[in-house]
Amino acid sequence: MSRSIRLAVIPGDGIGPEVVAQGLKVLAAALPSDVKLETREYDLGARRWHATGETLPDAELASLKDHDAILLGAIGDPSVPSGVLERGLLLKLRFAFDHYVNLRPSRLLPGTATPLAGRPEIDFVVVREGTEGPYVGNGGSLRTGTPAEVATEVSLNTAYGVERVVRDAYERARSRPRKKLTLVHKNNVLVHAGHLWKNIFDRVGREYPEVTTDYLHVDAATIFFVTQPERFDVIVTDNLFGDILTDLAAAVTGGIGLAASGNINPAGAFPSMFEPVHGSAPDIAGTGKADPTATVLSVALLLRHLGHEPEAARIEAAVEADLAARDGSPRTTDQVGDALAERVTG
Amino acid sequence: MSRSIRLAVIPGDGIGPEVVAQGLKVLAAALPSDVKLETREYDLGARRWHATGETLPDAELASLKDHDAILLGAIGDPSVPSGVLERGLLLKLRFAFDHYVNLRPSRLLPGTATPLAGRPEIDFVVVREGTEGPYVGNGGSLRTGTPAEVATEVSLNTAYGVERVVRDAYERARSRPRKKLTLVHKNNVLVHAGHLWKNIFDRVGREYPEVTTDYLHVDAATIFFVTQPERFDVIVTDNLFGDILTDLAAAVTGGIGLAASGNINPAGAFPSMFEPVHGSAPDIAGTGKADPTATVLSVALLLRHLGHEPEAARIEAAVEADLAARDGSPRTTDQVGDALAERVTG
Ligand SMILES: CC(C)[C@H](C(=O)O)[C@@H](O)C(=O)O
Ligand SMILES: CC(C)[C@H](C(=O)O)[C@@H](O)C(=O)O
Repeated sequence: MSRSIRLAVIPGDGIGPEVVAQGLKVLAAALPSDVKLETREYDLGARRWHATGETLPDAELASLKDHDAILLGAIGDPSVPSGVLERGLLLKLRFAFDHYVNLRPSRLLPGTATPLAGRPEIDFVVVREGTEGPYVGNGGSLRTGTPAEVATEVSLNTAYGVERVVRDAYERARSRPRKKLTLVHKNNVLVHAGHLWKNIFDRVGREYPEVTTDYLHVDAATIFFVTQPERFDVIVTDNLFGDILTDLAAAVTGGIGLAASGNINPAGAFPSMFEPVHGSAPDIAGTGKADPTATVLSVALLLRHLGHEPEAARIEAAVEADLAARDGSPRTTDQVGDALAERVTG
Repeated sequence: MSRSIRLAVIPGDGIGPEVVAQGLKVLAAALPSDVKLETREYDLGARRWHATGETLPDAELASLKDHDAILLGAIGDPSVPSGVLERGLLLKLRFAFDHYVNLRPSRLLPGTATPLAGRPEIDFVVVREGTEGPYVGNGGSLRTGTPAEVATEVSLNTAYGVERVVRDAYERARSRPRKKLTLVHKNNVLVHAGHLWKNIFDRVGREYPEVTTDYLHVDAATIFFVTQPERFDVIVTDNLFGDILTDLAAAVTGGIGLAASGNINPAGAFPSMFEPVHGSAPDIAGTGKADPTATVLSVALLLRHLGHEPEAARIEAAVEADLAARDGSPRTTDQVGDALAERVTG
């Protein structure tokens, strides 16, 4: 636990700046007065790219590195060709800072709407691998744009990369009451990557006899997400499967407006980055309709990561109380942020 | 429409033989008396592999080819290493017979249970590419089993392969009342494959001005599957995304016990193959608990493919009537088959 936090802030595109402002408001309210918070804002995203053609210059990357953590709003805009900002900025950060644990908790809290009938109990966390798999950007295309085009995408998986994230997931499973870990992959089709994952999962598991384990194919996992989500405790999975599953998880636990995430480098060699799972939602940018809760919950993950557990828990409690008190009357982004900041202080 | 059907039958593993028996029962009941049905059964799957080490010998493949269609139950058993039968038999068939249209309709019928609150209207069809993408089996591993292991999986996508399936999907969309086609991919991350798909989707779309189009990232698509499934009409997507989405689609439309599929070679150069989406469910094999409805609906797709539209429609109507009449009292696999056969005849 540090008495000062040097925080890099990337508001980004669309609703990003709006939700980040509320995240910072709640962060300031939560921090004890003797903890010094220094923030530095980075102008990265669509505007910058249009103005300069840059996504993430090396100098910015070096400067970002010199922080305790990063708070990111959202990246992506329809005016920019698909992939340019995602690959050139968001994923570049995750890869450059070796964010191999992409942590995405899912809890169905009282007061939240779920599309599932009967409101099952949902309280699980997905540990998504963040630096390998189909996300590595290893692919290409030949004879692009012609009828003879061939395009490839290579999923790269290493024992090194899989073992460290699997180990992190076992540690998390061990520290939770139910102590259950589910590996999700597709090892009956993607046999090479799948067997690597499964073998390491089984081998590391022998060091955690107190953790119950389970394996599901990704297609079957989506079924259980809607029919029996209460069966999950901790899930560990590859980068792409984790991307898909965590959006579905968000949808069944009150919507993408509540889903927080941390891109974590557990060893601390690089700053970890915290961001809502949702995107930049350009359709509602500027309308005050964006729910900043996912960003605020990401701030809680950030504080926990930096050792400020009581403050993290206070923010989470404030969100729970706020959700339980919602009566359906519309509030602006700012009003939600104010309400949360007040609960955190009060 | 042919006056004779030469049908190859692969009952397979687990509940496969049980559900296939009911499928054949209903098929026999549905066919006009002047249509000659010849079936030939193939002993393929776990038993054969244990006995001989074979998954799909060339001679069997050649013999299967000499049919009008194939009905398959389910393939896969825990006693066989994961991937051996899936890759060596099921996927080998799909690839060898160039089943590039993997057709998976999803309708929420009266009388069926859905985990979704409020029972949205669901009536869409997924056209899953069946011969490319991450399923091609192009991958490998180096230093297998050591801490220095690297494993790859290569997704291969060709303009040839994408265009033909996209075209098929536009044709289907045009023939449906809502005339809407959604492409699902992840072109902000898998930029090479994603842009190939998107460019072809847009280009072919100019030939179908009456079809409304839409693009969704696969993660976002899973959200809409549970929050707003009524927005979908026809979906076209890659092999892996289609695998994942169709299990989720089955889950929200009454369960995997009702989901039918066709592995179709539209040109008819090879026999098409029809199978329930569910697996071999070894845990309930032999108990009489398997619901044969997905297989029976796959038989309807088979008949439609062979030009027997009235018979296909009769089977689907029988299933609808049977579902609407279900009162929760348990029936055996055989009883469901009998009830459906009776409705089809009567
Ligand atoms: C925007 C995109 C690159 C990103 C991803 O695919 O990881 C997003 O979907 C997420 O889940 O954080
Ligand atoms: C069994 C498996 C190889 C298969 C697939 O992944 O295609 C199944 O899940 C399906 O959807 O038909």
